[in-house]
Amino acid sequence: MAKFMDIHRGMQGITADQLLEAHQADLAIEKDESVHFEHAWADPESGTVYCLSEAPSADAVQRVHERAGHRADEVHAVPLEA
Amino acid sequence: MAKFMDIHRGMQGITADQLLEAHQADLAIEKDESVHFEHAWADPESGTVYCLSEAPSADAVQRVHERAGHRADEVHAVPLEA
Repeated sequence: MAKFMDIHRGMQGITADQLLEAHQADLAIEKDESVHFEHAWADPESGTVYCLSEAPSADAVQRVHERAGHRADEVHAVPLEA
Repeated sequence: MAKFMDIHRGMQGITADQLLEAHQADLAIEKDESVHFEHAWADPESGTVYCLSEAPSADAVQRVHERAGHRADEVHAVPLEA
């Protein structure tokens, strides 16, 4: 298992409710891919959403996001933390 | 005070020690701008570093990073969390 940060762009105007709904859609199916989405942050102005997860691979993260209806634009392993 | 996520690109090959050193350089001067850097994550392969902070403004975040020697490529407020 490793940490991943993924980025969704083009989400201008996203609301707190929409972010929560999207996050919960991930949480509802994440176990199928042994992924856990730990946190999500959103900037409605630039339309950027960041998701931090623990997962076996970037592909597993993307498969959950795709099935939940919101493919990520970038998924990066983040093996280093401070 | 608000939450911000900033991104540094072009950091290919960054090591755990270098990330820690950069983060500590921010922490050492962050009080001057009333900023607090909560966490940093790095992907040495794509050269991407993400920093999460609490700050009065994006400009304050950038001023700390600049004085610490590592200007961010993007700084986004992230008022929404899930």
